[in-house]
Amino acid sequence: MAYELHYWPTIQGRGEFVRLALEAAGADYVDVARGRGKGQGVAASLRRMTAKRLVQPPFAPPFLVHGKHTIGQTAAILLYLGPRLGLVGKSEAARIWTHQLQLTVADVVAEVHETHHPIATSLYYEEQKKEAAKRAKAFREQRIPKFLDWFNTVLARNPAGSTWLVGARLSYADLSLFQLVDGLLYAFPKATQRALATTPHVVALHLRVGSHKRVAAYLGSTRRIAFNEDGIFRRYPELDA
Amino acid sequence: MAYELHYWPTIQGRGEFVRLALEAAGADYVDVARGRGKGQGVAASLRRMTAKRLVQPPFAPPFLVHGKHTIGQTAAILLYLGPRLGLVGKSEAARIWTHQLQLTVADVVAEVHETHHPIATSLYYEEQKKEAAKRAKAFREQRIPKFLDWFNTVLARNPAGSTWLVGARLSYADLSLFQLVDGLLYAFPKATQRALATTPHVVALHLRVGSHKRVAAYLGSTRRIAFNEDGIFRRYPELDA
Repeated sequence: MAYELHYWPTIQGRGEFVRLALEAAGADYVDVARGRGKGQGVAASLRRMTAKRLVQPPFAPPFLVHGKHTIGQTAAILLYLGPRLGLVGKSEAARIWTHQLQLTVADVVAEVHETHHPIATSLYYEEQKKEAAKRAKAFREQRIPKFLDWFNTVLARNPAGSTWLVGARLSYADLSLFQLVDGLLYAFPKATQRALATTPHVVALHLRVGSHKRVAAYLGSTRRIAFNEDGIFRRYPELDA
Repeated sequence: MAYELHYWPTIQGRGEFVRLALEAAGADYVDVARGRGKGQGVAASLRRMTAKRLVQPPFAPPFLVHGKHTIGQTAAILLYLGPRLGLVGKSEAARIWTHQLQLTVADVVAEVHETHHPIATSLYYEEQKKEAAKRAKAFREQRIPKFLDWFNTVLARNPAGSTWLVGARLSYADLSLFQLVDGLLYAFPKATQRALATTPHVVALHLRVGSHKRVAAYLGSTRRIAFNEDGIFRRYPELDA
């Protein structure tokens, strides 16, 4: 049974963490809001989310539909998909640790969104540029180095070696860290390069995931939406320095 | 074996979601940073977190130590504790749904923090008051109603009845929604009362959890730290309206 991913069709956004997991595993899935068939497209996707018969309604996209399950929240979707796609270890300890890493990636992603929307999601960036400049400065100078240092430490301390974040195999946390670094390099190239200069394990992980056979094929395909200024990672040169 | 909770000793903060779960279940636990015994206190707690031998270092408090496990990230801690404390259903579907609710509570909590720190965590509130006023306005007018409406819908649609969020028993998501409402009522009494006027199931849940025998005993004890202006939920009257 194919997985149905429901997410905004023109941005990577939070949906990209789910796309990467499905792609890396070679899973059979439909990116519903991007389809043109019957029951597809963004309107159909939103109708699905707001249907009154849904007893477990997602708060917002992305959400996954699989058989009778409808699951929202990126990290909860990956909690569900991880074991099914072979993207998490079998032990409870490995699953909780992988999830902890994912939740920390999610924290950074939320902070990235705040750099261009520090006042309100309902306003345009242009309406909060002054505040965004201040917020982005703190994010660049304090938060990017702190988060990337932590992930570097996690890789350095992995008893199975620094190849992957958890144990000796690719997990969804590796895919998510790849996406985080990729997005940071797009949005804040100067600040991110500075932080990566002292976090070599993170650099190596980013390259390793990007050259994973199925991930590389995905990144080179039209299924990978390009970064753009409607997504979470936006390149506003005035916010980088 | 007692659970060890490690968190800042003078605020409820994110640690409170863990405290509430431990208290509601009557679990044996030590609030390490608040203790005065050997190996206790905030310095000992932070040493524990930053120890170089730790192969799974938490990014920040709260973290839980249980036997050989050290777990950070509030939602990951609850994912670990839920089954052990009888605070989540046994089926995978119940566990994922409960977690999805928890992650949405966490999203609101992060937004509450942004209302008084929209520019930088490293600056005082007084240094970002102007931006905080704007951010809080959007949060009060758009986000509080939207989030509380969603939780009200979840309660209304629960096939087992609107007593609890998931199935027919108390889960950690109920405790967390209680804490969220309690905090919102402290920080934004006017805006929250307005939203609660149209979300009766949320009001009922807040009262129900607050009168749960062990929860009520905890709330009346000195173990419950009072809300204050160092925590996440802060009462700055100028941010409410």
